Amino acid sequence: MTPAESARTEPVTAAHAAALDAADPLARFRKRFVGAEDDLSYLDGNSLGRPLRITAGRMADFVERSWGGRLIRGWDEGWFEAPLELGDRIAAATLGAAPGQTVVGDSTSVLLYKLLRAAVDHQAARDPRRREIVVDRDNFPTDRYLVEGIAAERDLQVRWVQAPPDAGVSVDVLGEAVGEQTAVVLLSHVAYQSGHLVDVGAVTALAHEHGALVVLDLCHSVGAVPVELDGWGVDLAVGCTYKYLNGGPGAPAFCYVADRHQAELTQPVQGWMGHADPFAMVPGYRPAEGMRRFLTGTPPIVAMQPIGDMLELIEEASIEAVRAKSVALTSYAIDLADELLAPAGVTVGTPRDPALRGSHVLLRHPRMREVVAALWARDVIPDFRNPDGLRVGLSPLSTSFTELHRGLRAVADLLPPRPAVGL
Amino acid sequence: MTPAESARTEPVTAAHAAALDAADPLARFRKRFVGAEDDLSYLDGNSLGRPLRITAGRMADFVERSWGGRLIRGWDEGWFEAPLELGDRIAAATLGAAPGQTVVGDSTSVLLYKLLRAAVDHQAARDPRRREIVVDRDNFPTDRYLVEGIAAERDLQVRWVQAPPDAGVSVDVLGEAVGEQTAVVLLSHVAYQSGHLVDVGAVTALAHEHGALVVLDLCHSVGAVPVELDGWGVDLAVGCTYKYLNGGPGAPAFCYVADRHQAELTQPVQGWMGHADPFAMVPGYRPAEGMRRFLTGTPPIVAMQPIGDMLELIEEASIEAVRAKSVALTSYAIDLADELLAPAGVTVGTPRDPALRGSHVLLRHPRMREVVAALWARDVIPDFRNPDGLRVGLSPLSTSFTELHRGLRAVADLLPPRPAVGL
Repeated sequence: MTPAESARTEPVTAAHAAALDAADPLARFRKRFVGAEDDLSYLDGNSLGRPLRITAGRMADFVERSWGGRLIRGWDEGWFEAPLELGDRIAAATLGAAPGQTVVGDSTSVLLYKLLRAAVDHQAARDPRRREIVVDRDNFPTDRYLVEGIAAERDLQVRWVQAPPDAGVSVDVLGEAVGEQTAVVLLSHVAYQSGHLVDVGAVTALAHEHGALVVLDLCHSVGAVPVELDGWGVDLAVGCTYKYLNGGPGAPAFCYVADRHQAELTQPVQGWMGHADPFAMVPGYRPAEGMRRFLTGTPPIVAMQPIGDMLELIEEASIEAVRAKSVALTSYAIDLADELLAPAGVTVGTPRDPALRGSHVLLRHPRMREVVAALWARDVIPDFRNPDGLRVGLSPLSTSFTELHRGLRAVADLLPPRPAVGL
Repeated sequence: MTPAESARTEPVTAAHAAALDAADPLARFRKRFVGAEDDLSYLDGNSLGRPLRITAGRMADFVERSWGGRLIRGWDEGWFEAPLELGDRIAAATLGAAPGQTVVGDSTSVLLYKLLRAAVDHQAARDPRRREIVVDRDNFPTDRYLVEGIAAERDLQVRWVQAPPDAGVSVDVLGEAVGEQTAVVLLSHVAYQSGHLVDVGAVTALAHEHGALVVLDLCHSVGAVPVELDGWGVDLAVGCTYKYLNGGPGAPAFCYVADRHQAELTQPVQGWMGHADPFAMVPGYRPAEGMRRFLTGTPPIVAMQPIGDMLELIEEASIEAVRAKSVALTSYAIDLADELLAPAGVTVGTPRDPALRGSHVLLRHPRMREVVAALWARDVIPDFRNPDGLRVGLSPLSTSFTELHRGLRAVADLLPPRPAVGL
């Protein structure tokens, strides 16, 4: 691209991005992250969040003082309670959930298996005609694969729904699919590709009208979009801590089970840590009271350490302020796309109404696979999603407007405007 | 105890312990562990191994340079392969298993669920009459609870076997239980309480004669007792990395599936990381070739970091040398128990033949619960196991003879000799 072509795309200037940063009330948080000073445009915090600077020292300190210093005594001095305590802390800071309903452990996929199995087995026991799991075709692969596996092993049906192009899952989409045959509706709060945000309260009300349970996947919202699990009446939920909760690659997941369901639901992966009295080591599995019954093996204490560092920032900033910055960032991304990328044929696959989207923006173009590869070589890091999507992931506390501007300018450099037709 | 009573128990002297340390060819490894210089007798390395000193820096470095520096790019630069590569490394150093049969991930309990389900579902599909899981009553709680849960959900029977008092599971014990109705035999290589070591080769041959599959739990042997999974013909195995592999509290587990079974076994927790092409995110679950199909969610990369540090020591020392020190330590523990504790009525619940035991020693006495509590208050850390057991866990590369001596002297201080009958 020549300087003249580049100039054509002003007034979306770097100076404007800098002004947005200067006016950002949360800008001060960014320097607490590793790499904030690097010349990198990191637009993939929705896949893997940056570590906090404090996390490196915390991990070393944990190894030397907690693990090394306390050794097995650590279990009596906090580790045994840690899955519940960290769960409560996630719940308070990000989930709109009262204590005693959230635990940390396993991977999202394993927790989703346990909750879905608990839910469908309970529903089938109540009413053998409830043999359908409703899930949308655009849901994240793990969610779809797990549902298919569970349906096969429990002799259930999968009822697929499909949102219209450029829309998300809604009461309209689910209306025809949910009925007296529905055991469970599995939904993602924010769609992993398009970023559509589901009206969970409305969808949950619909499901409940028909006696179905709602299992909500929070992977693409928790930590960036306010969640009101108790207020919405959600039954069960799972979520991830390595995206907007910055827990590190493969960090443990969390799950939520509403108080009212805890005594009636049991999950099938009956390990010792879900037992009512794990250290008695008695014959016969008896599920613990409360959320502990959703644990299975020894809790991942080392891997849980980084999560609290990000929660501290969210607690300090408040999830509402985080959401406000997320909306500002996604709005700016869409503005930049309209100005810089639409001339090249890039389309925005994410809702333009901020109330309808999460914290990432999908940009579509037939050449996006090669564009993303070229961006990575230039230290601009979004991710690619089949077949033609570039996801701009905007982690509100670690992403600057300047970095976002630089990233989308780089996309524009790689996708010159199409010549006008007929010229 | 008076000094006169204390003197009675010589010649089991501290000087002798020091001489054993001086003659120990592996003594040099101990100083590489955190806390080696502390005045602590740590006899619970079979529950939670000490961290290596190098691990603290490795964790900080991982946070700053790998996670923080490479961010999402880390998945393309090694993390995606890490569960298989670390699995192969564990296999080579400790399992007697060729590459391509071991992966790291999840907890032991979750992996055991996945492998047991894969095995029993496969067996039932081959021959619907194979509806029994054979397991011993002395097996670790998680193993027993999981088997009961799977039996209930898959409509199978649990066939419990019971080893005689003071013996372990053997061909004799299993002979009557294993037959054409057996789907799976689940065994622990080393019994978590008594320390009995199973002759896995013999038991596996028996199971195979009857068409049953063997699932081996290596939690209490891996890293301390040589394992020959390929040589013994074991079908499936799981193990833990926070005991003798010093991975830290709640470190991820590993599982082994013999080459010959990989294509025919599928596990039920169908997450995206077990898919043949995880990042294609296509409709429909298709299990990956090879060991990747036993993965489910995003691999726990942060939590995997410490494991390599201990493997490096085992590779340097060799598992055979580790075993030789383990035998020397357990023998010394039994000698000390005979000299110092038998007069108080303490009995040894672990085989006296070193070929029949793992790397911990069970000492039994009706007052052991209170004794262990009192020991902890004195910085002597074994663990207690219901109803009357003190376990002396001896992690060969981090435990000194002096520390063991000090610990069992402290037990003797708390359990004075019984007065002779009739006096």
